[in-house]
Amino acid sequence: MSKGLTSRSEDYSQWYNELVTKADLAEHSSVRGCMVIKPYGYSIWEKMQAVLDQKFKDTGHSNAYFPLFIPKSFFSKEASHVDGFATECAVVTHYRLKNDGTGNIIVDEEAKLEEELIVRPTSETIIWNTYKGWIQSYRDLPILVNQWANVVRWEMRTRLFLRTTEFLWQEGHTAHATAEEAIAETEQMLHVYADFAENWMAMPVVRGKKTANERFAGALDTLCIEALMQDGKALQAGTSHFLGQNFAKAFDVKFASKEGKLEHVWATSWGVSTRLMGALIMAHSDDQGLVLPPKLAPIQVVIVPIYKGEEELQQISAEVEKITTALKLRGISFKYDDRDTQRPGFKFAEYELKGVPVRLAFGGRDLENNTIEIARRDTRTKETISRDDIAEKIAALLDEIQANIYQKALDFREEMTTEVNSYDEFKQVLAEKGGFISAHWDGTSETESKIKEETKATIRCIPLNNKQEEGLCMVTGKPSSQRVLFAMAY
Amino acid sequence: MSKGLTSRSEDYSQWYNELVTKADLAEHSSVRGCMVIKPYGYSIWEKMQAVLDQKFKDTGHSNAYFPLFIPKSFFSKEASHVDGFATECAVVTHYRLKNDGTGNIIVDEEAKLEEELIVRPTSETIIWNTYKGWIQSYRDLPILVNQWANVVRWEMRTRLFLRTTEFLWQEGHTAHATAEEAIAETEQMLHVYADFAENWMAMPVVRGKKTANERFAGALDTLCIEALMQDGKALQAGTSHFLGQNFAKAFDVKFASKEGKLEHVWATSWGVSTRLMGALIMAHSDDQGLVLPPKLAPIQVVIVPIYKGEEELQQISAEVEKITTALKLRGISFKYDDRDTQRPGFKFAEYELKGVPVRLAFGGRDLENNTIEIARRDTRTKETISRDDIAEKIAALLDEIQANIYQKALDFREEMTTEVNSYDEFKQVLAEKGGFISAHWDGTSETESKIKEETKATIRCIPLNNKQEEGLCMVTGKPSSQRVLFAMAY
Repeated sequence: MSKGLTSRSEDYSQWYNELVTKADLAEHSSVRGCMVIKPYGYSIWEKMQAVLDQKFKDTGHSNAYFPLFIPKSFFSKEASHVDGFATECAVVTHYRLKNDGTGNIIVDEEAKLEEELIVRPTSETIIWNTYKGWIQSYRDLPILVNQWANVVRWEMRTRLFLRTTEFLWQEGHTAHATAEEAIAETEQMLHVYADFAENWMAMPVVRGKKTANERFAGALDTLCIEALMQDGKALQAGTSHFLGQNFAKAFDVKFASKEGKLEHVWATSWGVSTRLMGALIMAHSDDQGLVLPPKLAPIQVVIVPIYKGEEELQQISAEVEKITTALKLRGISFKYDDRDTQRPGFKFAEYELKGVPVRLAFGGRDLENNTIEIARRDTRTKETISRDDIAEKIAALLDEIQANIYQKALDFREEMTTEVNSYDEFKQVLAEKGGFISAHWDGTSETESKIKEETKATIRCIPLNNKQEEGLCMVTGKPSSQRVLFAMAY
Repeated sequence: MSKGLTSRSEDYSQWYNELVTKADLAEHSSVRGCMVIKPYGYSIWEKMQAVLDQKFKDTGHSNAYFPLFIPKSFFSKEASHVDGFATECAVVTHYRLKNDGTGNIIVDEEAKLEEELIVRPTSETIIWNTYKGWIQSYRDLPILVNQWANVVRWEMRTRLFLRTTEFLWQEGHTAHATAEEAIAETEQMLHVYADFAENWMAMPVVRGKKTANERFAGALDTLCIEALMQDGKALQAGTSHFLGQNFAKAFDVKFASKEGKLEHVWATSWGVSTRLMGALIMAHSDDQGLVLPPKLAPIQVVIVPIYKGEEELQQISAEVEKITTALKLRGISFKYDDRDTQRPGFKFAEYELKGVPVRLAFGGRDLENNTIEIARRDTRTKETISRDDIAEKIAALLDEIQANIYQKALDFREEMTTEVNSYDEFKQVLAEKGGFISAHWDGTSETESKIKEETKATIRCIPLNNKQEEGLCMVTGKPSSQRVLFAMAY
C-alpha cells in the first residue's frame, strides 16, 4: 500500500479525492467528467440499490425502463424544464462513423439526424410522453414506476461521485388522480429516503422543502433531505418533487374521472444517485480511510491470521472456520484473508482504508486461550475476548457500530447548527465555523439571491414541521414567521 | 380486455408483436428504434438479472461501471472492432442547447466537442483503456469484472426485445495472465449461459463455436448458445468471446509475469441482453399468450375467487389466506385477485395472456368440499383437487411445468433438426420445414457467404464436442470432417 492519506484538517478536498481512489471506490475515466466505479465502490452502491429497491417495492412501486435518448422537441415542451437543463445536455447529432479513405475514422455527415437526440439528464419528458398512452381513465391510476438508470448532465467542474457528467441514479415517476394523492406520494418518498439515510447510511438528515430558487425545473414543490458533511458543508442527498399538472399539460395527459370528467393527471418524481456514495464517504470517514456503516459494508468482518509456520496456520484456519460458519448462519458477511504474500500490518491498514467495520486477528496464543483480538473500525479500539458465542458478540458489535456512527454524526450536526440573529453574525459563523445556520429570512427570492451572491451560502431547506417563530429577516429586517437553514453546500 | 391474439400459424411475426404489447411487456417509444420496457416485462428481466448476477458472483466476478461514452479515437484502436461497429454508432458532437432568440431550442454550435463521443455499442475499448491503469504485475490478474448497462447500436430494422437501437445487457470483461486461463473463462461463461437458458428459461440450447464470418469484431473465437424458436428460426441467445491479446495490444496493457517478463494480457468478454426476453417469449408461448417458466414468472400462482355476494367472498378470502400463508412459507409468489370490477372469465384470460403458470379458482362449492380448481398454463388443463397439502401440490406442479415446457421445447428442436447431404435437399428443408439443418461444409468463408447469399441461411455454430465424421461439402464437394448447424436466424 502507498503512503497514508492527506489528513482532513490539512486539506479536506484532497483527503476526499485520495480516499475515493485509494480505497478503490472510483476513478476518473479518460472521458471528461465521467467516472469509473470500481468493484469495491460498486459493491457498496449495489447494497444501497438493494435496500432502496426493496423499499420502493414495499411502497407499491414497480421498475420499468425508458429510452436513454429524448427528442429535442420533447425537451422544449415544459418551459422551465428546458431552461433548467438545456445548457448541460449531451447531444447526439449523427448515427454513423466512416473511414475517410485515408484510414481515419470520421463522422459520416450523410448520417445526420433530422432531429437531434438529447442523452437524458432526467426522464420526465420521455416518460410523460409514454404515460399519455397508458392513461385513459381513473382506473389506470395511480402509476407507480421507478427506473434505475444512467443520466448525463454536462458539468464543467466534476468531482468523483459528487458531481460527474454521467451518474447512476433511480428516478421514480408517478401519476395520480388528485393533487392530494400526489403530494402524499411526494412526502412518502421523502420519508423513504430519510429512513434510508438515517437507518442504513447512519447519516442524520434534515427533511425540508426547497425555496422557489432551489426547486427542480418543472416542479411546484421540491422536498429534500440535507446532510452535513464533516467539513461543515451541506449535501443534498435526495429530492422528491411534486410536479403538479405541469408535465401532464405539456404532454396532454388526461384521464376520465369517476364522474366522467376529463382532467389532467397529477405527477411526482423523486431520485437519489451515486452522489449518496460521496455523502456516505464524507459523513463518517477519517484520516485512516473509509468508515462504513455495517449495514452497507460489503465485508462486515475481516479475519486475519497471525501465525508462525504452515502448521499453526492450519490450526488457526480450522478454528476460523468455526467462526465463519457461525457468521454465515447470522447472515454476517466476512472475508478470511490468509494471503501469505502480505504481512498482517499491511492487511490491517488495507481494511482500515476500506472501512471494514470489524477486524478479527487470530494469533497462536489465541489457539490455547480460546481468545481472539477484535478491533472496531469506528473507534479504532481493540480488545482480546473469549471466542465463546463469538458470532453473537460480533452481531451485537455491528449494531453498536451502526448506532455509534449515527450518533457521532448527529452530535456533530447539532454542534454545527447555529442560530443567528443578524447578517453580520451570519457571515461570521459562515466564515469561522460553517455548518447549518438557522436564520430568519423574508421569504423573497431577491433576498435569497443577494445572500447567495454575497456569501455563497444557500438556503438548504425550510425544515418540515418547522417551529413557527416571529422574527425579522436578518438582511432586510422584514417580518418572518420561521427560521430557515442556510449553509455552504456541495 | 381486447380481442385475442393473431395466431402463430396465421402470422408468427404479428403474433409476436401483439403478444409483447398486449401482455404489457414492452412497447415502441417515440424515439426511433428504442423501446419502453413496461413494469411486467421489466419484472421478468429483473428475475433474469438476479439469477445471472448470482451465477457471475458464484464464479468469482464483481460488478463495476464504466462510462457510457467512448472517445472516437479509442474506437479506432482495434481495427476489426471499429469495422464491426462504426456504421451503427450514435455520435455525441455537442454538449449544450440554447434558445435561438425566437423561442426555439437549438444546438449551440459554440459547444462543439473537440473529439466526438460514441455512445457505447459495447465497452471493450473504454474498459481496456481503464485496465491499463489497473494491471502492472501478475498479482493484479485475473480481473473478473461484469457490468450491467445500456448500449446503443443504430439498427435500421428494429423489433421489440429482438433488435432495438438501445438495449440492456451485461458485459463481462476479464483479463488473464495466460491464453489457457482466458479460454477456460470463455468456456466457463458459455456454460453459465447454457445452464441459465436450460434450467431457468427452460429453453434448450446448442453450445457451439461461431465461424470466422460470424465472429465478434475483435475476437479470436466466439462461443455461443443457439436456441430454436417455434417458427423454426434460430436465435443467438448469448456469446462468450476469447479476445486473445488484441485489446491488450491495442491499449498497450502489459503485465510483469512471475518470471519478470513483460507480456500482453489475455482477454475475454461475454454478454447476454434483453434479447433473452424475446427468446423466452418465442420459445414457449402460444396463441393464448405468454407461457412463462415458473422459475422466471413474476407471479407463479394467481388465485381468483368465484363468489355470490360479499359474505361468500369473505368466507373464500379467509380460506385463501390459509393457502397464501402456506405459499409464502415455500417462497412461491402469488396474487390474490379479488377485484370486483372484473368478471372471473376476464381475469382468466388476462392471466393466460400474461403467462402465470398456475391458476387457482375458488368457488362457493369448494368451501364445503375442501376443494379447489387448479389450472396449469402450459397444457391449459384443469382439475378440481382437495385443498389438503395444497402448497406442496403447487410446488410439485411448478416443478412439473418447468420440466414440461423444457421437454416440449427440446422435443420440438429435435424434430426440427434435420441432417441433409446435398445442397438441393438443404434448400428444400429450409423452404419447407425450417429449423436447424446439419450439413457438411468445406470450412471456407467463401462457401459460407455463398450459402448465405443464395438462401439467407447462416451457420449458427459448430457444436462443441461435435461428432467427427468424414463427408463432402454440400456445395463444393470438398472434404469435410464434421457437420455444422445452419438455420435462418433472428
